[in-house]
Amino acid sequence: MRRDRLFLAATLTAIFSADLYFILLPKLRSLGQGLGHFCSCGPNNLTLPRHGGLATPRLSNWTSLPPLDGTTSEPADGGSKLGRLFAHPLYNIQTPPLGPEERLLHAEQLMEYYRRKVSRWERHMKLYSEAAAASNITVTEHEVTFDPDASWVKFHLGISRYTLYSRDDPAIPQLLKEMQSMSVVSADYTQDEKALKGACDCTQVVKPSGHHLKLALKMQNFAKAMFKPMRQQRDEETPEDFFYFVDFQRHNAEIAAFHLDRVLDFRRVPPVAGRLVNITGEVLQVTHNEDLRAVFFTSPANNTCFFAKCLYVCKTEYAVCGSPDLLEGSLSAYLPGLSIAPRISIPNPWIRSYTFTGREEWEVNPFFCDTIKQLYPYNSGNRLLNIIDMSIFDFLISNMDRHHYEIFTKFGDEGFLLHLDNARGFGKHSQDEMSILAPLSQCCMIKRSTLLRLQLLARPEYRLSDVMRESLEGDPLQPILTEPHLLALDRRLQKVLRVVQRCVRRLGEDEVITKDFVKSTAKPQTATEIKKDR
Amino acid sequence: MRRDRLFLAATLTAIFSADLYFILLPKLRSLGQGLGHFCSCGPNNLTLPRHGGLATPRLSNWTSLPPLDGTTSEPADGGSKLGRLFAHPLYNIQTPPLGPEERLLHAEQLMEYYRRKVSRWERHMKLYSEAAAASNITVTEHEVTFDPDASWVKFHLGISRYTLYSRDDPAIPQLLKEMQSMSVVSADYTQDEKALKGACDCTQVVKPSGHHLKLALKMQNFAKAMFKPMRQQRDEETPEDFFYFVDFQRHNAEIAAFHLDRVLDFRRVPPVAGRLVNITGEVLQVTHNEDLRAVFFTSPANNTCFFAKCLYVCKTEYAVCGSPDLLEGSLSAYLPGLSIAPRISIPNPWIRSYTFTGREEWEVNPFFCDTIKQLYPYNSGNRLLNIIDMSIFDFLISNMDRHHYEIFTKFGDEGFLLHLDNARGFGKHSQDEMSILAPLSQCCMIKRSTLLRLQLLARPEYRLSDVMRESLEGDPLQPILTEPHLLALDRRLQKVLRVVQRCVRRLGEDEVITKDFVKSTAKPQTATEIKKDR
Repeated sequence: MRRDRLFLAATLTAIFSADLYFILLPKLRSLGQGLGHFCSCGPNNLTLPRHGGLATPRLSNWTSLPPLDGTTSEPADGGSKLGRLFAHPLYNIQTPPLGPEERLLHAEQLMEYYRRKVSRWERHMKLYSEAAAASNITVTEHEVTFDPDASWVKFHLGISRYTLYSRDDPAIPQLLKEMQSMSVVSADYTQDEKALKGACDCTQVVKPSGHHLKLALKMQNFAKAMFKPMRQQRDEETPEDFFYFVDFQRHNAEIAAFHLDRVLDFRRVPPVAGRLVNITGEVLQVTHNEDLRAVFFTSPANNTCFFAKCLYVCKTEYAVCGSPDLLEGSLSAYLPGLSIAPRISIPNPWIRSYTFTGREEWEVNPFFCDTIKQLYPYNSGNRLLNIIDMSIFDFLISNMDRHHYEIFTKFGDEGFLLHLDNARGFGKHSQDEMSILAPLSQCCMIKRSTLLRLQLLARPEYRLSDVMRESLEGDPLQPILTEPHLLALDRRLQKVLRVVQRCVRRLGEDEVITKDFVKSTAKPQTATEIKKDR
Repeated sequence: MRRDRLFLAATLTAIFSADLYFILLPKLRSLGQGLGHFCSCGPNNLTLPRHGGLATPRLSNWTSLPPLDGTTSEPADGGSKLGRLFAHPLYNIQTPPLGPEERLLHAEQLMEYYRRKVSRWERHMKLYSEAAAASNITVTEHEVTFDPDASWVKFHLGISRYTLYSRDDPAIPQLLKEMQSMSVVSADYTQDEKALKGACDCTQVVKPSGHHLKLALKMQNFAKAMFKPMRQQRDEETPEDFFYFVDFQRHNAEIAAFHLDRVLDFRRVPPVAGRLVNITGEVLQVTHNEDLRAVFFTSPANNTCFFAKCLYVCKTEYAVCGSPDLLEGSLSAYLPGLSIAPRISIPNPWIRSYTFTGREEWEVNPFFCDTIKQLYPYNSGNRLLNIIDMSIFDFLISNMDRHHYEIFTKFGDEGFLLHLDNARGFGKHSQDEMSILAPLSQCCMIKRSTLLRLQLLARPEYRLSDVMRESLEGDPLQPILTEPHLLALDRRLQKVLRVVQRCVRRLGEDEVITKDFVKSTAKPQTATEIKKDR
């Protein structure tokens, strides 16, 4: 608990100093220069003043983050905007070392868990090889080695109460690199698909069946990644008549969302890398699942294709095809298994109606947030602020499909929200769906730390589109986003800031811009307690 | 029977004269000019010589057909290639008047049938209006009048043993005009859709569910037409990885196929017109079917849409939307009801395998036709030649989906083959699917009358693409085909002629070019007899 308080104090101090120098000081100055009142309504009201010679919060030893492609970055004051961003004091607030209770996993426990998994896999492989030889099935076999120092293990061990990875963790660029190139030793349906047991999810009548195309790939070093194949060209926009819930899943949106999350310093999206997958050699020939093998076929154009695993109508019109075998896709690093790191999935209070005509309460009641603010777990701690962070993230990527969010049960209500499954983002660059921002615009609250970073990214020196373009250049499937999508990020960022500005004008800064962790409960509740409370 | 023989004699005489002057005479001439042998392999070997001062077959009084848009055509020697084509002797072979047994329907019987239908409709409307008023459902009601002289009645009465309509029937352009503009008084699923009883046709796992979007529209004068909505833009090509059986149905292919069939003088496709349908006013508001009403919804872009009537996954991703209500579609005139004019549906001997890997015998056995030639009903009469005509038609439109064909039972085996359901044509202009021509290339037989017309359409004065362009200009949704699709017709026509040429070189003209009706059985078998024989 002491460590907890220490961390709280450190964060508060850091935020207070940033606050003092970035907001209060310039305000006092501008007052001194005779400006009448705070809200003179220029678009730059809430942007950061240039910092030069200002005292900055305590910096960690890392002045710039390692770039994601593994090359060394340019000096912080050089041509790299991304380097300069990550060298900025706001991105270098030093945090005290994490205590064991602030980490998701214990190293020994995890090693034991993975060793058991690895030996189960080896037994399975032995049996499978014998059975396959007996039935004359050719399965490509690869040498597999479990390395306790592998980047994916380090990623799992690095997950904390605050973020999925630390800013300076060299395991993350390493993991991205491995997902891009390491040999795939097996492919299978994901648990979601297996739950369907071969049938379409026919209860969800409005959902298209074609999205059941994601696969779990296992790498040579036992790393596991979720593969989402390319369904749509980069320059195709979602048809205007599509409902958000039947929209395609886009592999490039999944990749871009990871980079944006990192640029925003949220670090709530697991690492995602693009990869040109050979669906014959790296999926068909390494799968041990007969059902998966059965959905492969050769198209009239002699390309290898596979389709969704549904018994009914969802067949070739939903297929994806290689050219002739190579297919772009996103690879998202798996989180630790649910048995060792359980998570719970909680409906988003601002969930949409998944019907044609239905409307949810938040769409019709402008005081919806007042109700939510009274309700557990949104009535204390950071949960509501975290939801607002998520809505800003979703608005920037234009994802309308955030029906649930997940948290690690270990950290209880104070844990961060995982931003998983972002493939329905980046559908239309030409449209800004303001309703996604409802949590922000209805609650009129935002974390000061989030706002400061958004303001920084609105400045020409750190322009969001520029740092995103630079960040995405590290991916092998670049360009990940078309220019119109990159420019939409800047436009949407301005709209977020304008919503905050309107709130401040209406309610005053103190009400709107909330000090992070300020209402933190003393002791994090565990998920079991959460469940009991319901 | 005597009338039958008379007709046979007249046709034979006409074809013989055409043959003599178009083929034999020039051949003798070229021989006289010292050319070594017949097949000197130029692409024009089998094209028609220019006609001028040649004796022509007996002409009917109609020197040119009325154009389909109802305007009077230019003089035959003027700028209209289509006019010139229809004025050509080959398109003006006079046929003796039809006897009652050569007509599909008797006028009195048909009138009695329709009068019963009309009074049933009126009773239904009365009851429905009362019920609708009781349940507060608004249904637009239109004045409906049955006119025994309506163009659709004339079309039905004009169907003969030889064709669906006669060349000079003024009811056909009239019917097209009415389908383009007449008020729609009711809309419903077609019988096919009703047979599905709300469920997807889940036995046909490889078939997409999205094609169940066709509707039956009833017009103010009781004419009935099948509406197929636009699914694809004119310039979109079918993706190369699509199997033919999951391809979209294209409304413009349906329209273009009718025009091509007429240009080829087959007249085996019922009239089809394009129309901009108001799916709210002309479908939703006039339907009495609750199921149909239930599949309408408003899209996020505020357009009216409807989707296929399947219980499972086939939902909004398959929807079609108006803009906001107007949607292009094809309207195909209904044939007389099955109870008054029964038809049978017979599998095409050259059916394709509707699986990913299966191959049918014709695809692997080059002597497949020899087997077919021995089998009833292909071992006598015109049936095989009719199949070959159909394959030429399908090759020109590039339709791979001709799994069955229909004939009117009344005319037995000597009846012509109906070329229904052509919406999977015109998918790819850049590809010529030679396998569609298998009946021609494997059997090496073609009707002389068909060949003569194909040769005519290969000549610059009557170029197929030009007459098709001109013919399609009469449709309100013009342009119906993009230029690449029109030009593909010329290229494919040349390929058909080359296949015939290769056959002639191999087997000689007498074997390949078959005099129409030459093997006609004396007495047409009825469909009941056909069934007994199986």
